[in-house]
Amino acid sequence: MSLSDKIKPNDAGLVPAIAQDVRTGRVLMMAWMNEEAFAQTNATGYAHYYSRSRKTQWKKGESSGHVQKVIDMYIDCDGDTILLLIEQEGPACHTNRESCFYQQRQNDEWVTIAEPIK
Amino acid sequence: MSLSDKIKPNDAGLVPAIAQDVRTGRVLMMAWMNEEAFAQTNATGYAHYYSRSRKTQWKKGESSGHVQKVIDMYIDCDGDTILLLIEQEGPACHTNRESCFYQQRQNDEWVTIAEPIK
Repeated sequence: MSLSDKIKPNDAGLVPAIAQDVRTGRVLMMAWMNEEAFAQTNATGYAHYYSRSRKTQWKKGESSGHVQKVIDMYIDCDGDTILLLIEQEGPACHTNRESCFYQQRQNDEWVTIAEPIK
Repeated sequence: MSLSDKIKPNDAGLVPAIAQDVRTGRVLMMAWMNEEAFAQTNATGYAHYYSRSRKTQWKKGESSGHVQKVIDMYIDCDGDTILLLIEQEGPACHTNRESCFYQQRQNDEWVTIAEPIK
């Protein structure tokens, strides 16, 4: 099992991975996987990503407890993007919002939408 | 209106943009925007992307007719990913499938799921 099996990483060896809530359908976040993160996600059933700033692989929710149980995983037609359908424990965003996508385009500005911070 | 307004492109000046069907909630594709594609998307209300292979900005569906009317647009917490909620005309994928994410992880393999090719 490796990224090279149908998955085409970028020059840095990374693939974008979209996490979508399997219960609500909401897109929660986008992060990156390297080969190790992909292998760990497959092996454990929980989403692992690669941090480009910390240059290390990490388990989502390892410190916060806001883990993502992977229910289904897809790749796109050209194999350069992963889609995870997950069960999210707690909020996905580090701001404690349900989703990282909470800034909406309105009248040529980005407006923070009203939603509970958990 | 520019990408630099809250949006943080990568070193190549690009931002990943996820297109989600506003009617079904299905994630249809992921592509890239540069500043011009973002401006055109805002100006026209239809999704425009940047092709890394052709090195040019393009309107999704310009030749196929499979355009994407943008209903809502979001950015994520760190401003480096865009989420488009769109009304998709026809199939989103160049394979004429509804979504580009039609290969599912099953028993350590990627399996093409059964769905109509339109």
